[in-house]
Amino acid sequence: MVLALENQIVKKFGLKGPLILSPLAGGPSTPELVSAVSNAGGLGSLGLAYETPEQITQIIQKTRSLTSKPIAVNLFVPTKTPELSAEQINQAIEDTKKYREELGVPSPKLEPPYSLDFDRQFETMLSQRPEVFSFTFGLLSSDYIKECKKNHIITCGTATTLEEGILAEESGVDLLVAQGIEAGGHRGIFSANEEDSGIGLFPLVRSLVHNLKIPVIAAGGIMDGAGIAAVLALGASAAQLGTAFLLCEEAGTSKPYREALVSKNRKTKTTRVFSGRIARGLENRFMKEMETRQILPFPAQNAFTRDIRKRSAELGKSDFLSLWSGQGIELIREMKAGQLVAVLFEELKTATRG
Amino acid sequence: MVLALENQIVKKFGLKGPLILSPLAGGPSTPELVSAVSNAGGLGSLGLAYETPEQITQIIQKTRSLTSKPIAVNLFVPTKTPELSAEQINQAIEDTKKYREELGVPSPKLEPPYSLDFDRQFETMLSQRPEVFSFTFGLLSSDYIKECKKNHIITCGTATTLEEGILAEESGVDLLVAQGIEAGGHRGIFSANEEDSGIGLFPLVRSLVHNLKIPVIAAGGIMDGAGIAAVLALGASAAQLGTAFLLCEEAGTSKPYREALVSKNRKTKTTRVFSGRIARGLENRFMKEMETRQILPFPAQNAFTRDIRKRSAELGKSDFLSLWSGQGIELIREMKAGQLVAVLFEELKTATRG
Repeated sequence: MVLALENQIVKKFGLKGPLILSPLAGGPSTPELVSAVSNAGGLGSLGLAYETPEQITQIIQKTRSLTSKPIAVNLFVPTKTPELSAEQINQAIEDTKKYREELGVPSPKLEPPYSLDFDRQFETMLSQRPEVFSFTFGLLSSDYIKECKKNHIITCGTATTLEEGILAEESGVDLLVAQGIEAGGHRGIFSANEEDSGIGLFPLVRSLVHNLKIPVIAAGGIMDGAGIAAVLALGASAAQLGTAFLLCEEAGTSKPYREALVSKNRKTKTTRVFSGRIARGLENRFMKEMETRQILPFPAQNAFTRDIRKRSAELGKSDFLSLWSGQGIELIREMKAGQLVAVLFEELKTATRG
Repeated sequence: MVLALENQIVKKFGLKGPLILSPLAGGPSTPELVSAVSNAGGLGSLGLAYETPEQITQIIQKTRSLTSKPIAVNLFVPTKTPELSAEQINQAIEDTKKYREELGVPSPKLEPPYSLDFDRQFETMLSQRPEVFSFTFGLLSSDYIKECKKNHIITCGTATTLEEGILAEESGVDLLVAQGIEAGGHRGIFSANEEDSGIGLFPLVRSLVHNLKIPVIAAGGIMDGAGIAAVLALGASAAQLGTAFLLCEEAGTSKPYREALVSKNRKTKTTRVFSGRIARGLENRFMKEMETRQILPFPAQNAFTRDIRKRSAELGKSDFLSLWSGQGIELIREMKAGQLVAVLFEELKTATRG
């Protein structure tokens, strides 16, 4: 099969194969995990959207100390700070009161802005010069793209539809992640009303490859070498895997999260209950019970539920954690990250030997 | 690439390649379309769920007169006839009153059963001995499976989840269609509460291939040879394409349906408004407006909206038609069916030449 095993992405970054580790913000993508993937010949990504500039510097430098190979850093494009009414806030507090009582956390203070300053995060990222800067939740204006180019940082956007992909290419990014509905974690949707098209990886990759000039990276539900071979057949230049790495010992996946990932009857759903933005995770009590209650717009809901999630992790309970996972969960494996990368490349070779 | 181009399905039916035409019930799958696909080296499927025994006989015989190659026949597994209250029926009539006025059709009579007698359809199918009998919406008890085996008819079930796939294999079917969330038309869901898992083709095929022994046929969003190559890489034994064939001149796709398929801003969504069962189609006025109104359980809603859909087609309006389409719609092409099959095989060869 004529697969682009020796394609632009593989060559540019000197990879052993077309494999990228998804940025797993909020815990799992530790320096240890990211460096292990890069050292094994994939491209590791740090998900640093929830980190302060100081933390960003520290985490990147720690990762650099563990690998001399290229790495990617991922941030969230800023969204307008939502204006919340007192009624909204009170209702949100009321709707989560019993959980805070159960967990023993005080009633939260909720003050804008509900997220970190993007420009400071961006400048810190720039100063650390990762080989790739990837982002999600929107487009960046040409000033940001130019700054990256000036610093020889490859830019990578995220699209969930053909329309978003076309806009991303027009914005000047070098690469594009095609995020199928199968993907775990936050959906990168940025079209006007944030309505979810729900497009599967398969038709999404195919229509993006058909319509764009920039390389497309396929993300969502890919768990093994056969899956990587399949997206290459669709014309993708690389596969991005996240869920597949969650059980690696180097991953910062919490204990209750790990237990949920291998539990019986695990099933994934999309939800807004944790952050206000659509994301896919393993269904748990918080997802079920909060679905019909007051959910604040992103990123306010994210700030608002942080204490609940944090305490739930501390108590070893998965009931209130965001258990991000893709639909490929059935095929998750537990091994060290470097070994998993080697196995993936071996499977890919088997699937593509001609 | 080691793809199963010469696999069980291809060999068993003497196909030129691992391609099956989806059963497109309710119009598109004419004897002309099905025979053209079979004559070109694919396996054509007749979707005959909405046909009487007399029509089933006639359509199969017509198809047989146009091809000596194998064909498949598809029926819907019967569901329990729902019991409707007078309030439900009155509300449904009220909620659709303005459409019937607009279209000039009288208020409908709605009497159980709301679908045709399955056993008579099944017996007719048996008597006509298609090479394959495929079905959706559930499992068939062993008596039906045995009857097919006795008549040398290969059976093929449909699954939208791993759990459904395991049940289907246990029921004794020879083949299984893995229907991804991308697929157009009715979802084959048959788990207890008919809740939609929404699993994409990619992880669905992969987990079914991993867990089952019977050959898996991938369906949903596949539009070209690269797509067929991709599902073979995932371990599927064949690809089943429906939407890709809707613009073929041999297809019984109505004029307004064809126009909608090539319209700007076409987008697909899942809906229950036409039949009471989840199905994917191009969003139109009826889908938008009815979403929040009274929808009767399947198959009552299907019987209830039939007059509206029929009149809408007669008037050349797509507003009230079920415009079934998969998410791959962006890549639809207009050519004769035999030519499309040849192009698909050529693309597949290009994608898999080693």
